[in-house]
Amino acid sequence: MFLDIKLNGDSPIYLQVKNYIKDMILKGMFQGGEKLPSTRELSIVLKVSRNTIITAYEFLEDEGFICIKKGKGTFINELHLNKQEKWCLDWSNRINKYAVSSEKLDIMKHELQYKKGMISFKSIAPDESLFNIEDFKRAFLNRISLEGNRLLNYGYAKGYKPLIDELLVYMTKKGVDIKDKDILITNGFTEGFDLTLASLTNEGDTILTENPTHNTAIKLMKLHGLNIIGISMEEDGMNVNDLISKLNANCNVKLAYIIPSYHNPTGIVMSSQKRVEIYNIFKKYKIPIIEDGFNEELRYSGSHIAPIAAISGEGNSVIYAGSFSKILFPGIRIGWILADKKLISVMESVKRSRNIHTSFLDQAVFYEYLKEGSFEKYLKKVRREYKEKYKFAVQCIKKYIPCECIYGEGGIHLFIKLKEINSREVLRKCYSRNVIFTAGDIFYVDESGKDTFRLGIGRNTKEQIEEGFKIIGEVIKDMT
Amino acid sequence: MFLDIKLNGDSPIYLQVKNYIKDMILKGMFQGGEKLPSTRELSIVLKVSRNTIITAYEFLEDEGFICIKKGKGTFINELHLNKQEKWCLDWSNRINKYAVSSEKLDIMKHELQYKKGMISFKSIAPDESLFNIEDFKRAFLNRISLEGNRLLNYGYAKGYKPLIDELLVYMTKKGVDIKDKDILITNGFTEGFDLTLASLTNEGDTILTENPTHNTAIKLMKLHGLNIIGISMEEDGMNVNDLISKLNANCNVKLAYIIPSYHNPTGIVMSSQKRVEIYNIFKKYKIPIIEDGFNEELRYSGSHIAPIAAISGEGNSVIYAGSFSKILFPGIRIGWILADKKLISVMESVKRSRNIHTSFLDQAVFYEYLKEGSFEKYLKKVRREYKEKYKFAVQCIKKYIPCECIYGEGGIHLFIKLKEINSREVLRKCYSRNVIFTAGDIFYVDESGKDTFRLGIGRNTKEQIEEGFKIIGEVIKDMT
Repeated sequence: MFLDIKLNGDSPIYLQVKNYIKDMILKGMFQGGEKLPSTRELSIVLKVSRNTIITAYEFLEDEGFICIKKGKGTFINELHLNKQEKWCLDWSNRINKYAVSSEKLDIMKHELQYKKGMISFKSIAPDESLFNIEDFKRAFLNRISLEGNRLLNYGYAKGYKPLIDELLVYMTKKGVDIKDKDILITNGFTEGFDLTLASLTNEGDTILTENPTHNTAIKLMKLHGLNIIGISMEEDGMNVNDLISKLNANCNVKLAYIIPSYHNPTGIVMSSQKRVEIYNIFKKYKIPIIEDGFNEELRYSGSHIAPIAAISGEGNSVIYAGSFSKILFPGIRIGWILADKKLISVMESVKRSRNIHTSFLDQAVFYEYLKEGSFEKYLKKVRREYKEKYKFAVQCIKKYIPCECIYGEGGIHLFIKLKEINSREVLRKCYSRNVIFTAGDIFYVDESGKDTFRLGIGRNTKEQIEEGFKIIGEVIKDMT
Repeated sequence: MFLDIKLNGDSPIYLQVKNYIKDMILKGMFQGGEKLPSTRELSIVLKVSRNTIITAYEFLEDEGFICIKKGKGTFINELHLNKQEKWCLDWSNRINKYAVSSEKLDIMKHELQYKKGMISFKSIAPDESLFNIEDFKRAFLNRISLEGNRLLNYGYAKGYKPLIDELLVYMTKKGVDIKDKDILITNGFTEGFDLTLASLTNEGDTILTENPTHNTAIKLMKLHGLNIIGISMEEDGMNVNDLISKLNANCNVKLAYIIPSYHNPTGIVMSSQKRVEIYNIFKKYKIPIIEDGFNEELRYSGSHIAPIAAISGEGNSVIYAGSFSKILFPGIRIGWILADKKLISVMESVKRSRNIHTSFLDQAVFYEYLKEGSFEKYLKKVRREYKEKYKFAVQCIKKYIPCECIYGEGGIHLFIKLKEINSREVLRKCYSRNVIFTAGDIFYVDESGKDTFRLGIGRNTKEQIEEGFKIIGEVIKDMT
């Protein structure tokens, strides 16, 4: 005993000694009543200080594994482990419909996965090398020294108050009237959208959305058992004729879900005029709008376009779901819902029931980062970078990829429509040549879009873009 | 214009200038086409450097509010805000049953709230002054310098791999056999429990639990539309006769939910023998167990008691929900589910659909903190502190509060049963004397427990405990 213990520099020595002994007890190598070597003896055997062993023993006593009897020595306690005969269930019979659907709709489990060495256009995550980590570190240290203890204890379901106030001002600067409105902090857009559907819809309800649209949103609408009506897209957003005819054909539409800026996956920005037009159509049909503020911050050019939440003025019929995830720190999962005060109050209770609140540490650091102007500084930098990359990618598509249409006008992804070529087949062939992207059909609410695909370029170098697009182009040319 | 701008030290000057101009544009004080002062002129007026103004103008151009024409000057863009006529909905008609129940069951909205200056025994949160912030800061700085950029980008639904591995070892040290099991990281216990019910139960299913039990768990069971069967408690945990008779009377129990250690609210620790006994009963009736590891880490004395997950050995019928929240950093919301590998894989998809993943930054810092031994060091410190406080509180109850029974044997809360006195009435009277605690009825799944209450002592000084308990005792004496 104790001869096979290997002490290393990974964690404190007393902890390694403690864990070694605990392991032995749990494995039955030390039995109840057995005497352990004295702290002096063991310190000599292990060539560590006696204090180290004393600390290790104290921990073991605290955890109830040993008993230190003064003047008599240290003894192993009886261990009541009592492992019982194996009893196994078949969980697959016990999982409900919702869980089964969650797995079925989980594209991470069904789509081709990135492998090391590939050129990947799958992700629309930001380029992490652009993150200004030093600013983030400073924000953390500032906040933690101001109110560290408090931040690590329980917070409030609605969110960290200074962040809420900061975001309310931020929304005002987008032209939104915040009177009688409020904000709920969520774990990113995804939770915000899920909470909204969970609070407002019932199985069998109908929801209206752009077609194609954000795959995560489609998944959530399906998981909530909603009927989805897709409205076709044109150059400046939803096709209004299609919208009106579908509204006339379906009298019970409960909600609309719209991504007006840098729409995912098409990258289309809905024009100001169209925003007003569709707002008034929904108003006429009394259908509230969930506006996804996705990548709104990432505009490269043109004049300011107000979100639909701003167009609605003092009205309370738009639920705005915001997030900086797609451009800034997706890893810390912070988003928000801006909506009618009373609705936010109800959703606050739903949020509390589900996970108490979003990490207060993250919210506070995020707040500090915004307040210090680091976000604006970062935005300025990435806008320039992404704009250049975007332009370059468009050139490369024109040069290499024969297609019917390149959608969109910015963002960090491009959406391509081919001339009657199945994009999954293209993907399969590209994959064998170490290039991967996202087949477009997963963004469609019907069976269409089989000739489309999305190219995320945020994390790629220009060289990768050129090389990858060349390969995609070659594959397509081979197929025509 | 520009005369009313007040520059302060709160955020960078260029940002304040930018926001001032943006505000003016949004308020219609600057009209489209209007010319802004030159950067030189404005820098003189505001007494700031010209570069500050240049930066502010660049930001405004980036955001599309102004247009800088070389040699001509800087002009306000046309603003397409187009606020429409007010359209208001009555959201209360549009909220579904689930959201209504969430609000109805939200005790934060219906119970008496703490007011400044009160002595509060409401909370069972830890004492934040015991947090070792310096260790936490070091953990953050270490992790962020090792892999900061990566941590802030998207992670994985299942969790941060090093943390999962660390927790698997941690569970092994509790005696759990981890073969064919896996871990899902959740936003605290609450999300873990919600995800479990969401994946395994359907409306109308029956679940069995200790009575009383954790209020958040009751809320979630009700929100999932479950029938709840409560089993009465005795000194060493569930009453076995009550359990068997209720199992015989209800043939379709789907799941059991149990808090074997420092049970909330009673503080009772289920004995080793009873753990084995009830495990075998559930096995006989083929009912899987959700084991809430609540405050298991906070034992003060006695020998090690293995969790039920350890008793089940190689079996896969126990779902263990762990969290350090109640003792360590509740604010960062990290918990975990340890269960059968296949079940975890399904729940991973459910988790992904709901919020992509738990903050990777928090997980990584938490991992570092565990690995460095800071958690064990912290535990050692708080165990001593809380043990002393607990003993003192028990003495004070005996001295001041006439009651039928003090439940439990540790933790940072006490549960009291009065002699046929309504605890809500006691609470009301104490409240007017600036003392607040939690009425016990919210922990019961039936109409009982009206003569009970919970006293959380984690955050109180000894002086507050003595003074507060004295007042509670006086109120009770007045009522008898």
